[in-house]
Amino acid sequence: MTWRFALLVAPVVADDPRTDFADTLAVIDPDAPALSVGELSTQRGDGIFETIGVVDGHPQEVRAHLERLAHSARLCDLPAPHLGQWRAAVERAAAECPTGESAIKLILSRGVERAATGLEGPTAWVTASPVADHTAARTDGIKVATLDRGLDSGAATRAPWLLLGAKTLSYAVNMAALREAHRRGADDAIFLTSDGYVLEAPTASVILRRGDTFVTPEPTGGILQGTTQLSVFDWLEEQGHSTGYEHVPAAALADADAMWLVSSVRLAAPVTQLDGVELPVDRELTAAMNAYLLSPRD
Amino acid sequence: MTWRFALLVAPVVADDPRTDFADTLAVIDPDAPALSVGELSTQRGDGIFETIGVVDGHPQEVRAHLERLAHSARLCDLPAPHLGQWRAAVERAAAECPTGESAIKLILSRGVERAATGLEGPTAWVTASPVADHTAARTDGIKVATLDRGLDSGAATRAPWLLLGAKTLSYAVNMAALREAHRRGADDAIFLTSDGYVLEAPTASVILRRGDTFVTPEPTGGILQGTTQLSVFDWLEEQGHSTGYEHVPAAALADADAMWLVSSVRLAAPVTQLDGVELPVDRELTAAMNAYLLSPRD
Repeated sequence: MTWRFALLVAPVVADDPRTDFADTLAVIDPDAPALSVGELSTQRGDGIFETIGVVDGHPQEVRAHLERLAHSARLCDLPAPHLGQWRAAVERAAAECPTGESAIKLILSRGVERAATGLEGPTAWVTASPVADHTAARTDGIKVATLDRGLDSGAATRAPWLLLGAKTLSYAVNMAALREAHRRGADDAIFLTSDGYVLEAPTASVILRRGDTFVTPEPTGGILQGTTQLSVFDWLEEQGHSTGYEHVPAAALADADAMWLVSSVRLAAPVTQLDGVELPVDRELTAAMNAYLLSPRD
Repeated sequence: MTWRFALLVAPVVADDPRTDFADTLAVIDPDAPALSVGELSTQRGDGIFETIGVVDGHPQEVRAHLERLAHSARLCDLPAPHLGQWRAAVERAAAECPTGESAIKLILSRGVERAATGLEGPTAWVTASPVADHTAARTDGIKVATLDRGLDSGAATRAPWLLLGAKTLSYAVNMAALREAHRRGADDAIFLTSDGYVLEAPTASVILRRGDTFVTPEPTGGILQGTTQLSVFDWLEEQGHSTGYEHVPAAALADADAMWLVSSVRLAAPVTQLDGVELPVDRELTAAMNAYLLSPRD
């Protein structure tokens, strides 16, 4: 599994009327040099991204990912992405994905800073690649450690410059949190506010089951709205369950009847242990949830 | 002023005994593609950096910058940089810098993620480029807006995975804070903790004058220790002033007898206005401070 595909995207303005974007998408060698050292994505993590799961060549929930890309762009004062162009790039990349699971990543960077001329406008690219086998996480589950995110519940509203609702390229803290979780013998982390509320995992959303109700923290600016979480909630409602968005206190985690971390590539991973304490796992429901997440979704 | 210079660095382990690093430094075209799309610096802001001021070809305070690079590497679980190699890279880049002021930037990234083989070890590069003319900021000063950083004073100690003492590439929030300051009619920002203490500017340190004492916020993990601030404190002490590190309440800003934001490239910028309120400026001392910062320093 060493295939990999990459496209450089020459961003067009959001209201460009064209419908054919072929000449704005350039296939490149994913292992060859493609970006200059002046890239602001690499110098300052100054850009946004999305990761889209692909199953048997079908990119999942493209519309929700593109809408979130546009939302992130607004929060970061980046030029609005042309969603038709990004959809064309996703479709071009998906056409290269073989049977089985893959991932497509979209990156929109603030651009290249040149000494003489200042900023030259955004740069963008799309990659497609195989994904690790997540069967064990989906069936046997994962251990999770809770970690303080340092921010209180009001920070996102008070301080929009913290970009808490944007999926930026500045993920060093998310990666450090995963390393800390591993040091604690866990597989993943759940961030808590400094005043004790549940936020999200570094690269996933949290869903709790309480009896027949499924709950996720309110996406009121402090966390990303999870595309997979939205999809799972739709499915749960179709199955007759009720779902809700709540301000979830940390103590509610230990009392949950079941818990999952859901994300676009690993899909639904049941949480078997929280800070060393065993949690109940609903294997049957988890299997059905992942079967749904592996079916084609738009 | 369109010159620009770049070196790719092939990092050697910290205890490599060699003394000649020429074959680990490759001169590249700074505007040509050099980095692959798999770069984790660009995908996740996962790496660290330093910016070194250069005056008439002399790189300033190289040792302090390299020590901070090593400190950031430890906080981010990156392989320890070989400081001799980085010094060689800085000297190579400095040799390209013309008379006047320039900047050298060092970047150490976690590396390139490849689909099949996982991580391949760190990547690194160094750039040298001309800098904007900062005369106006140094003499006429800058307007500053205070912005909530969302984190309380205890966060850095409680949650080292927030990487608050590391100079990471994840600077999207720093850049957003500068944009917010501009929206407020200011030139720069000063971050405050959510419990009302002074932290730092997005790309500079804060120094206050209170009578004959110069104060900067304690670098207890919540902020970067500023290399320029250290240098300014040494100089102030030589001039017979006293200096100190304190837990500075936000209210102390408005009461200051003078205030500066200091950084490696803009050097000492006196603050003329804080949140719209005029502050006293000591032009004579500021001029002497910048004259010192423009003299060769090791």
